[in-house]
Amino acid sequence: MNTPRIRVGVIGAGFVGGALVQLLSDESRHIALLDAATASLEVVGVAVRDAQKPRAGIDPALLTTDALALANREDLDILVELVGGVEPARTYIVAALRRGVSVVTANKALMAECGTELSQIAHEHGADLFYEAAVGGGIPILRALRTSLAGERIERVMGIVNGTTNFVLSKMTSEGSDYDVALAEAQALGYAEADPTADVEAFDAAAKVQILSSLAFGTELSGEEIYREGITGVRAIDVDFARRTGYVIKLLGVAERVGEHGISRRAHPALVPVEHPLASVHGAMNAVFVEGAKSGPLMWLGQGAGGEPTATAVLGDVLHAARNRVSGRHDVPFSVDDRLQSVSAGDIKSVFYISLDVLDEPGVLASVAGIFGNHGVSIQSMEQSGFGDEARLSFVTHSALTQNVHATIDDLAKLESVDSVGACFRVIDGGAA
Amino acid sequence: MNTPRIRVGVIGAGFVGGALVQLLSDESRHIALLDAATASLEVVGVAVRDAQKPRAGIDPALLTTDALALANREDLDILVELVGGVEPARTYIVAALRRGVSVVTANKALMAECGTELSQIAHEHGADLFYEAAVGGGIPILRALRTSLAGERIERVMGIVNGTTNFVLSKMTSEGSDYDVALAEAQALGYAEADPTADVEAFDAAAKVQILSSLAFGTELSGEEIYREGITGVRAIDVDFARRTGYVIKLLGVAERVGEHGISRRAHPALVPVEHPLASVHGAMNAVFVEGAKSGPLMWLGQGAGGEPTATAVLGDVLHAARNRVSGRHDVPFSVDDRLQSVSAGDIKSVFYISLDVLDEPGVLASVAGIFGNHGVSIQSMEQSGFGDEARLSFVTHSALTQNVHATIDDLAKLESVDSVGACFRVIDGGAA
Repeated sequence: MNTPRIRVGVIGAGFVGGALVQLLSDESRHIALLDAATASLEVVGVAVRDAQKPRAGIDPALLTTDALALANREDLDILVELVGGVEPARTYIVAALRRGVSVVTANKALMAECGTELSQIAHEHGADLFYEAAVGGGIPILRALRTSLAGERIERVMGIVNGTTNFVLSKMTSEGSDYDVALAEAQALGYAEADPTADVEAFDAAAKVQILSSLAFGTELSGEEIYREGITGVRAIDVDFARRTGYVIKLLGVAERVGEHGISRRAHPALVPVEHPLASVHGAMNAVFVEGAKSGPLMWLGQGAGGEPTATAVLGDVLHAARNRVSGRHDVPFSVDDRLQSVSAGDIKSVFYISLDVLDEPGVLASVAGIFGNHGVSIQSMEQSGFGDEARLSFVTHSALTQNVHATIDDLAKLESVDSVGACFRVIDGGAA
Repeated sequence: MNTPRIRVGVIGAGFVGGALVQLLSDESRHIALLDAATASLEVVGVAVRDAQKPRAGIDPALLTTDALALANREDLDILVELVGGVEPARTYIVAALRRGVSVVTANKALMAECGTELSQIAHEHGADLFYEAAVGGGIPILRALRTSLAGERIERVMGIVNGTTNFVLSKMTSEGSDYDVALAEAQALGYAEADPTADVEAFDAAAKVQILSSLAFGTELSGEEIYREGITGVRAIDVDFARRTGYVIKLLGVAERVGEHGISRRAHPALVPVEHPLASVHGAMNAVFVEGAKSGPLMWLGQGAGGEPTATAVLGDVLHAARNRVSGRHDVPFSVDDRLQSVSAGDIKSVFYISLDVLDEPGVLASVAGIFGNHGVSIQSMEQSGFGDEARLSFVTHSALTQNVHATIDDLAKLESVDSVGACFRVIDGGAA
């Protein structure tokens, strides 16, 4: 019996692409990949920058430098895009989708910026567009949101979705090191780029929040409205304060319902209670914590990066697209709830941890407390520490409107007795698990 | 435009069935459930034992006491079976599948015993058979194994898949209580049955191992070969020893590859390192930890029981079956690797914790150590504690063949200076996360 052959083109043969092509080329795995009777998979081309460079496990005859021609091949069934960035990746993907070719990508920047448009083009041309690897590397969270949780009303998604910052913050927690030291170590080990901006300023986490929230809530809200705050301001003394009070500091991507039709989307450091499942996600691991109205809390944990874990996620998408291909169908895009609106970060209530470097003199606490009171921000606990130049006041507020907390901070910074506002981080309430 | 109506029959209206019917009856959710243009879902009948009993949220006109007639309805698209147990559930399901009706069930006993047979009948008649809720309640682990991880070679699956025993062991850990006290508390809170045998003797966990291993490895091996050991022998002093040495005791369901074609399947208590992600799964929560050759470690966590979480998992299956129905297809069953063979528990190597109640007299350690040596079981660490009637020797072995450890235990029990073997539990190696 002749089984249909599903022809796969791959753009990009770096860590992920190389691992993927090897997985796809391993004939012994094909029984497991697709039912033998259903179809077989064949890599028909691999687009790279330098076709002369030898690549382990890739037949040199497959290599091409013309990615667009590969995307436009007449006989292609599935295009896998692994080059990253918005252009030219978008051009390749649009070319393939317009011909009804299904696309699998790991491109978070592109999906965060153009996800709605590309999904629409895919649907109009009867093709699939899958991007499991764009969030959480090898963790199969996106498919779960699209399928298993399709009937669930999701209230909140919170994720540790950036391995670099989690590695840095984990180091600061386990070793008490300063941010600069931990970052340098992450760079030396290859966990952080020479220019770490995209990670440490939470641009990467915000892009993942955009992708997660679009699937979790069915929104087409702009990613530009996502509130973003990096980890560069996290100090060893903040990590220590957190530890002593039962918390760990994590960079979280958060998307949650607020009221009837509001959605708040944010990426920022936060104090997470040690008993919360997210608190024990260490090093470069990623995790996504989902709170459903009926399902209760759910968490997915796994390796957020790395060639092989990411290739596994890409392969899962390729298999899904191949199965659809064989049965002549494609997945319908997630449904969109047009009533949803973006709620700005200032309008969200939260508990805050605030740390002030102050002059070591009488009366400071009174004037500081007065400013909190002026803005209606009430204090849950206060700690006075250090002496002289090191004198410090640390506060944990009751739940307060973020804009009121920020107004408090602005006024505090103007006080003569306050040297500087050292920290102002959100505190997450207790975990359900 | 007329959209197709997918007709759903539900057998059983307990906690799960009641929650499901309410979810399906909520018209406002249907936009999210299925693309409005795709199909709509309609509950056409609910089979119960007593049709006179009023049931909140269920139209009395839908109630019937004839479950078999419901399963045999001409116009049925999907049958949801929520009565549990092998018969008569099996009869209902077979009747529906034979007519090409897709089936969704939460029935772990049935799927563990008849899963292969039922999946075959479903496939032959072009129907789907989904059972996400049979393992881990609301945790969408089975679909992930069937889809996202379909291309992955899974090396090991370890799960905390029984909420009752995890509640009891968590209580013993957090409060230092004895087994009987913790069990009584679980019974008072409704977490344990009056007859807790199925849970505490690991029958329930073993059934879930059978279902997980069939999907993870593609086996049709008999569930009767699964090694099973309950938690009734876990004492407060064992929990304390574990805590002091950096472990927590958990009831684990384990399925793992051994050598080329071997599969070991077991359910037993084990000492889990505190840094392992499974160690922080508390109370009635469930979690499944998967180690893939390429994906690395992955973990799913969530509520393992309860009407609403379980109903969410059932609903996810119903939506998947409905989408397949609309597009005139069904999922192919997982592929089976006929070469796989069951490896008996005795042939597995493991580190063991062994605790002996001994006479408080000189020379005991020498004779005990001699017996370990006779069986080639080498000792990693030893602790002598208690005096007089309470004298105790606790050992942690190096990795040793289980049958050699059991032979050691048998000989130790015959020693005059050993009152009894208090504990012999496996120790899990460090987590990758």
